[in-house]
Amino acid sequence: MSTAPSPEPVPTAAASAPDLGARLDDLRREYAALQARGLSLDLTRGKPSAEQLDLSDALLALPGEGVHTAEGGTDTRNYGGLAGLPELRRIFAELLGVPVEQLLAQGNASLTLMYDTVVQALLFGVPGSERPWSREEQVTFICPVPGYDRHFAVCEELGIRMVTVPMTPDGPDAEAVAALVADDPSIKGLWTVPTYGNPDGSVVSEAVARRLVSMPTAAPDFRIFWDNAYAVHHLTEHEAKSANAIDLAAEAGNPDRVLMFASTSKITFAGSGVAFFASSPANVSWFTKHLAIRSIGPDKVNHLRHAMFFGDADGVRAHMRKHREILAPKFSAVTSILESRLGGAGVAAWTDPDGGYFVSVDVVPGTASRVVTLAKEAGIALTPAGATFPYGRDPQDRNIRLAPSMPPLEEVQVAMDGVATCILLAAAEAATA
Amino acid sequence: MSTAPSPEPVPTAAASAPDLGARLDDLRREYAALQARGLSLDLTRGKPSAEQLDLSDALLALPGEGVHTAEGGTDTRNYGGLAGLPELRRIFAELLGVPVEQLLAQGNASLTLMYDTVVQALLFGVPGSERPWSREEQVTFICPVPGYDRHFAVCEELGIRMVTVPMTPDGPDAEAVAALVADDPSIKGLWTVPTYGNPDGSVVSEAVARRLVSMPTAAPDFRIFWDNAYAVHHLTEHEAKSANAIDLAAEAGNPDRVLMFASTSKITFAGSGVAFFASSPANVSWFTKHLAIRSIGPDKVNHLRHAMFFGDADGVRAHMRKHREILAPKFSAVTSILESRLGGAGVAAWTDPDGGYFVSVDVVPGTASRVVTLAKEAGIALTPAGATFPYGRDPQDRNIRLAPSMPPLEEVQVAMDGVATCILLAAAEAATA
Repeated sequence: MSTAPSPEPVPTAAASAPDLGARLDDLRREYAALQARGLSLDLTRGKPSAEQLDLSDALLALPGEGVHTAEGGTDTRNYGGLAGLPELRRIFAELLGVPVEQLLAQGNASLTLMYDTVVQALLFGVPGSERPWSREEQVTFICPVPGYDRHFAVCEELGIRMVTVPMTPDGPDAEAVAALVADDPSIKGLWTVPTYGNPDGSVVSEAVARRLVSMPTAAPDFRIFWDNAYAVHHLTEHEAKSANAIDLAAEAGNPDRVLMFASTSKITFAGSGVAFFASSPANVSWFTKHLAIRSIGPDKVNHLRHAMFFGDADGVRAHMRKHREILAPKFSAVTSILESRLGGAGVAAWTDPDGGYFVSVDVVPGTASRVVTLAKEAGIALTPAGATFPYGRDPQDRNIRLAPSMPPLEEVQVAMDGVATCILLAAAEAATA
Repeated sequence: MSTAPSPEPVPTAAASAPDLGARLDDLRREYAALQARGLSLDLTRGKPSAEQLDLSDALLALPGEGVHTAEGGTDTRNYGGLAGLPELRRIFAELLGVPVEQLLAQGNASLTLMYDTVVQALLFGVPGSERPWSREEQVTFICPVPGYDRHFAVCEELGIRMVTVPMTPDGPDAEAVAALVADDPSIKGLWTVPTYGNPDGSVVSEAVARRLVSMPTAAPDFRIFWDNAYAVHHLTEHEAKSANAIDLAAEAGNPDRVLMFASTSKITFAGSGVAFFASSPANVSWFTKHLAIRSIGPDKVNHLRHAMFFGDADGVRAHMRKHREILAPKFSAVTSILESRLGGAGVAAWTDPDGGYFVSVDVVPGTASRVVTLAKEAGIALTPAGATFPYGRDPQDRNIRLAPSMPPLEEVQVAMDGVATCILLAAAEAATA
């Protein structure tokens, strides 16, 4: 029962898997055998594999001795150029569908850009704010769930209250979001990963995007943190293109509503890529004004290195197809093993994403943490249960995020077979509890 | 009258240069001739020259295709390693005199590390804080003057009040600092550039350092921002070594008082170097805990690139001697032209630094901005008068920061001759006003 991410609970074990209890002893033996293999496998985080990183190894010798001059004669080695190198910004402006003047190229992590943006809002407010967010009695962000644990950690660290809405196959539940923001002026932000959502793989549809950028908000300075981490990270021929939220927001008369983030972390080197910030002219100038106090400019040599490596936007697209060749078999392994081991058992629903880095699995409610523990004790590290929810608390204890990118294909297969055993055993335990 | 930075006002024009008024017409003619040359020269900022950047050009092809593994088998291309690459940290731990465990290697700018440290203190407080600094009624930093404009800009941006103390040839006036911090609990910070201060070139003596780290402070969470930007940036055989403030603070029973910052910005590439944070174990763990929310790790490929380029601490020292060969003649030109044009005229005092990036000139009080304007109108860009004081306001309007590193030697010579003319003309104008 491979499905788009299900906003509805899957059938409970009691309702749908009455015979699982009878299989408990078999499953325990199967699990004991799994444990006996002494595995050490890791599906915890969305890290690229060494094979993927190898695709960008030309970067290790770029720009090349004597090569340091960018267009306009800029010496990339020296200070300056706060907005980042134009030739690299142009490539990603095309890919992200934003004007190059509205796109900044910065350091090695979009997470840092997102954190710093929230901090700037707390310290200074954003265009349209009545006061710095830190002077509000309360600041609330809407967190679609399941979602990205690092988004939630930023809010938690910075004292921002989180309220959840469900994800749908078309992105965050826009009606739920609209209802919340209409009445509550403390709601200043919404997180979303619009293209191949983390972990559910959903893509924000144009209709949902239009609703989000045009809905009335009680706060005059509400912002959507549009974390376009996987904008070009396709796993199939069906290359999704998320709605152009910045343009749509401008059309809707809310030009400053969307803050877009992206990076090359999962295009070139995870730790040594380039991160991007895009938004309205007012937001870009707000961000840059404060950036100028803390930076004399980003690492332009790394920008030049990346611009030379890609050449142009088509260079990025061609490069991403090589990633796809490596990643697609791993994702197929995950979903086909889940299908063959669990299909029809009524104990799980999972996503079959067209891109991104994750498979989201909903298991029998109440058993996700048990599955993760069982896996751990069999040498298979999974992202902690609850990680896809604020404060690490999944109210139904049912969602598990699988990240198959890092291990070699054979390890993904072995690990997933083990995970299937753990899901079945936890369900059987629950059915007989 | 080349001197160590003078805490006392230089003699005024009226007192010491009674004959300058008589030279006014001559000086006006000289200035008109200077203007007629149509110069376009720039002594504004401490940027390395292209010739200096060339010294590190091997970095442009490092680490080299296929080379990405650091000690312990770390794949530098991937995520992780929040503290930075150990092999690079070890090199700079030796140079900065701190244990490697207490040194973090991060992104491309120590300015960013300093800003982020202040922001963390505002949002969360530091070890020993009763509350986040932003919840205090007022936060005050002591700013020795003349000082570094970007330090002051950080305070201004973040709403931190600045009070000044004079610089001495041994660093900040420690007795003035001690008197201020003893009574005022709002004083949370002190900026200092301990080695070859910006702009005065002073080096914090061990006695001053001991006083600063041991003085009683009304605030339990007072911090010294020890911006060791020029720790290895010598201009002469006399290689100053600033006091080891972190050790001294621990000895004095105030282990958490000192936060040290440094970078390779003026060692390798100004925009693409590596910045460092060093402090007590408690401060490092405080910094890292918050860093972990906003970063998955720094650019380790750039760390590896730098570690390979330097080899070891002696590699850095040898490299800095090459910088010195380029820089020393420029600094000599500045001071020898000042001496030959202004020596004995009683219109200026200037520093003759053993390292760093600046010469600090005190002109006739009330004429610094006039000098900068005259220079500008003759095509010579100088750092704005007042820049070395908080809010850009030099109460005596007498300090000018000269930055001779960037232009070629011949341009430095031409520019300095012009600056001398401007200083004389402004003094003569003042004497006859």
